[in-house]
Amino acid sequence: MGLFISFEGVDGCGKSTQIMMLEKSLVDMGYRVVVTREPGGTPLGEKIRQILLDKSNKDIEPLTEAYLYAASRALLVRQVIRPGLSKGDFILVDRYVDSSLAYQGQARGIGIDVVEAINTPAVDGLFPDITFLLDAPVGELMGRSSKVPDRIEEEGEDFQEKVREGYRILADRYKDRYIILDAMKDRFELHREIMEHVLKKFKGD
Amino acid sequence: MGLFISFEGVDGCGKSTQIMMLEKSLVDMGYRVVVTREPGGTPLGEKIRQILLDKSNKDIEPLTEAYLYAASRALLVRQVIRPGLSKGDFILVDRYVDSSLAYQGQARGIGIDVVEAINTPAVDGLFPDITFLLDAPVGELMGRSSKVPDRIEEEGEDFQEKVREGYRILADRYKDRYIILDAMKDRFELHREIMEHVLKKFKGD
Repeated sequence: MGLFISFEGVDGCGKSTQIMMLEKSLVDMGYRVVVTREPGGTPLGEKIRQILLDKSNKDIEPLTEAYLYAASRALLVRQVIRPGLSKGDFILVDRYVDSSLAYQGQARGIGIDVVEAINTPAVDGLFPDITFLLDAPVGELMGRSSKVPDRIEEEGEDFQEKVREGYRILADRYKDRYIILDAMKDRFELHREIMEHVLKKFKGD
Repeated sequence: MGLFISFEGVDGCGKSTQIMMLEKSLVDMGYRVVVTREPGGTPLGEKIRQILLDKSNKDIEPLTEAYLYAASRALLVRQVIRPGLSKGDFILVDRYVDSSLAYQGQARGIGIDVVEAINTPAVDGLFPDITFLLDAPVGELMGRSSKVPDRIEEEGEDFQEKVREGYRILADRYKDRYIILDAMKDRFELHREIMEHVLKKFKGD
């Protein structure tokens, strides 16, 4: 079995950079690595992603959002993550069920438990071996990302604060798989910390 | 409060015809009537509908299907059905949560209870006052519909038989709101039966 690693955090926290650096280092060590993302990661999942991030969909209900993420996730688990893990690959995922719990559950106010119940069939008991939470004060992260903000990213600082709060609840609830990292640290320092955790876990320490 | 009426049954059972006839009769009596459908019924719901019925989406997982229907349903309940009922309108829906239970739950094998759990937040306790099940042997119904078959309708007779079986389980489980009608009957005779049930319910008998 491979290793399943998810990256979580508010927008601009540096997930994408760390995923790229981790992928490169693992590939350089001769490992097979699959990098994927949520929502998306499959052809149909990418169609769902378009709906979710489309700014013209202003009237989207928080629950509808939660279901659309779960729809994409159910596919990703069955068509990408599980098959990859059974081949022994490293699976690096940019967001997983924790994003739904933090964004729709906590920040949009549906409730973490309700969103967890919705997602139970989608994840089918498959949780990451490690979840890296890139955490930092929201004010210091905003505007760091250079890309054009999507529908979710356009939410203001208050919303991102609630997301951060959600992640802290989750990190506490799932202590066994969460590793909280200081997102304000130098990217190379962060990468070294991440590598250390990953290799330790992979060796079964 | 208005009256919430759903129509269920396998493809070709005559739901659309009966909904049109019921709508006309109620409007002619001076009532306000909203006709809607699942999946769809809202702008975003119609985008979800396109994904669900698109034949090029061959690799769709049954669970993903269930989540996409729930996503559309959560919107329909909050943006169309609830507001309409609170204005005192008649709401006629072509398929509701029962379709998910029969199609994804029973026929696709996810299990009625799993699909029901997924949909609990979406329907938020809102069930139809009457659910008309247009029932008939699948063999006699197939090919009755003149439109080009969509992705779901292209499933074969075995699949439709399982859907029918699902509906029979539901009719038994939700006796208080189910009315089973013989879909092979003359359309005017069916319409008269439906009108009788609807007006009786509306008067609170």
